Amino acid sequence: MPYAVCSYIMDFKVIKQDTVTQARVGRLGTPRGIVDTPTFMPVGTYGAVRGVTPEEVHESGAQIVLGNTFHLYLRPGTRVIEKMGGLHNFTGWGGTILTDSGGYQVFSLAKLRKITPDGVRFQSPVDGSEHFFTPETVMEIQNTIGSDIIIVLDECIPYPSTYEYTKDSTDMTIRWAERSKKVAIGTGRGLFCVIQGGFFKELREHCTDELVNIGFDGYAIGGLSVGEPKEEMYAVLDQVTPRIPLDKPRYLMGVGHPDDLIEGVIRGIDMFDCVVPTRHGRRGYLFTDAGRIIIKNSCYKDDELPVEPGCDCYTCSKYSRAYLRHLFMSGEMLGLRLNTVHNLHYFGRLMKEIRLAIEEDRMLQFREHFYSLQKEKTRC
Amino acid sequence: MPYAVCSYIMDFKVIKQDTVTQARVGRLGTPRGIVDTPTFMPVGTYGAVRGVTPEEVHESGAQIVLGNTFHLYLRPGTRVIEKMGGLHNFTGWGGTILTDSGGYQVFSLAKLRKITPDGVRFQSPVDGSEHFFTPETVMEIQNTIGSDIIIVLDECIPYPSTYEYTKDSTDMTIRWAERSKKVAIGTGRGLFCVIQGGFFKELREHCTDELVNIGFDGYAIGGLSVGEPKEEMYAVLDQVTPRIPLDKPRYLMGVGHPDDLIEGVIRGIDMFDCVVPTRHGRRGYLFTDAGRIIIKNSCYKDDELPVEPGCDCYTCSKYSRAYLRHLFMSGEMLGLRLNTVHNLHYFGRLMKEIRLAIEEDRMLQFREHFYSLQKEKTRC
Repeated sequence: MPYAVCSYIMDFKVIKQDTVTQARVGRLGTPRGIVDTPTFMPVGTYGAVRGVTPEEVHESGAQIVLGNTFHLYLRPGTRVIEKMGGLHNFTGWGGTILTDSGGYQVFSLAKLRKITPDGVRFQSPVDGSEHFFTPETVMEIQNTIGSDIIIVLDECIPYPSTYEYTKDSTDMTIRWAERSKKVAIGTGRGLFCVIQGGFFKELREHCTDELVNIGFDGYAIGGLSVGEPKEEMYAVLDQVTPRIPLDKPRYLMGVGHPDDLIEGVIRGIDMFDCVVPTRHGRRGYLFTDAGRIIIKNSCYKDDELPVEPGCDCYTCSKYSRAYLRHLFMSGEMLGLRLNTVHNLHYFGRLMKEIRLAIEEDRMLQFREHFYSLQKEKTRC
Repeated sequence: MPYAVCSYIMDFKVIKQDTVTQARVGRLGTPRGIVDTPTFMPVGTYGAVRGVTPEEVHESGAQIVLGNTFHLYLRPGTRVIEKMGGLHNFTGWGGTILTDSGGYQVFSLAKLRKITPDGVRFQSPVDGSEHFFTPETVMEIQNTIGSDIIIVLDECIPYPSTYEYTKDSTDMTIRWAERSKKVAIGTGRGLFCVIQGGFFKELREHCTDELVNIGFDGYAIGGLSVGEPKEEMYAVLDQVTPRIPLDKPRYLMGVGHPDDLIEGVIRGIDMFDCVVPTRHGRRGYLFTDAGRIIIKNSCYKDDELPVEPGCDCYTCSKYSRAYLRHLFMSGEMLGLRLNTVHNLHYFGRLMKEIRLAIEEDRMLQFREHFYSLQKEKTRC
């Protein structure tokens, strides 16, 4: 009865290891149920995946969503969410929730930020108020709002950065992770650290080893997809994943596009999150097996086909490309939602196909097939 | 078998006449099914009721929606909708569709408009292109895009206007209606004229009598809710409705708020349309029996109640006021949609309650009860 067990403890099992690549199929058990890995987590910055209901997220095949601690802490605030019975109750999403530490946003969005060995002081971009995040406070926030998977505070190092800066920052991330490990969290919840180290092999390996030494329920890989060439990202994955215990989930933060997911899986990644399906949906970019459709293009003006023939999402089962184009051109909110529904569904289906390919030992063929179809795409 | 009959001819039957007021319950049969009257038509300017799916419109209790001919003619254009199999097929709304004539929009939105006895020339606000609407062309557009209820071209007279202007304009509207009557439309479809005459009793009565003389499937009352005091609007209804044959539907265009609907019904109106539930939803104004809720108000910050306790709409059955406030304050698109779902549901329920009150001969008591509850509302 893996479900029952997983309802009480955070638990991860590799079900199937690909014989050729690092890819594996796993099962992550959280207080909110099972997450089949490799998995893609839609982003619900303020608790809601933009434009869609929890039911629509669920129908896309997603089993876990990501909430942004920084945003939720500032609005509506920890106490409101706590009073409303936690994030699940507040937002109506019954599946697993992973929250980031807020670190990335403090470093990218907050004003007048000041890092000290103890934590980071910053001004709210919402109202200018002053706040101080420490490894302990961000865990308390995440625990209070009811996150199932909690992430330790880290610094996401800008790209490019010097060796010196990267080393100092990475050491701080390790010290913060050490402190985080000592904070108590709710039963069954998981605590993930974040591997930093920039684009220096030695620092990445050092950081990984130190964090593995401390020991966490899962290992996020941060500081990637920050503007570097894809090859550099893949190189870091090749350095890092073999050093993480096989029985722990690996999460590649903020990634990515369909090809990134496939390449990440092949390098041993189990979890991904990204705004791509939702943000692209709102911008009128629609994912299909044959490549991306730019719905505003005039060739779709009277195209009776669904976005992706054969796709069983609500959007494809009911609407034509012509109607989606019309909604987009007319600035109709419904269009953004229908696009998002399709894109989430596309990502959900892609992850399902990836899991099946691993189970059937044909992940490399799957990648080849994926790229071959993408090459066939016709643009207009 | 009223449904079968109504599937082939546009048909209207008064089922119950209130014994005290002009209110009546009726049944309007169109090629797309039965519409129970009095009815409220959500507005789907570009074919979609803003932010919601056809299923969500249907679940609100709406049986008929209004499409704007002017907007649809300009974008995506008559030919695209025709090629896509008509407005129902294009938008996925299977219920009845009424389209306005586009006259109101030509007079309020188009640039460089020039009225001639033959029609009205204007520039598109979308791309500056030149267009000419005649009574015949607007009917052809509506017929081609597959509207179930077609409205004749009229001039919506600005408020206030002189007697001279109003008289000349009203005479033109009558002449245009005469021409419209001669145009063939699809089997089963209905043709409604628009009663104008401004706020001059004699002109309103003259216009009504002339149009009744020509004979239409229904009578829209236009030129109201254009900035006049409510008493003036009610006075026009009192002048006009008794002159319309009892067995024809009366449609009060562009109205309105819940109290307007009740007052209109009491004066014999069967059909209404308005952007109020959808637009107010997007602005965070939520309708309840106890009055309007302004969701951004800080008193809802940690309010665990649904918008309207007891309401069985999706929004109320799943989300708290606190969450809706949070979504609104965070600028989350989902909030606009959830607000719209509730408001449409409120309007659908109000019309259902109105029909029941008429059937049970207690429409005046219903009005009294409605106002008494509204007075009780607590604001914050």
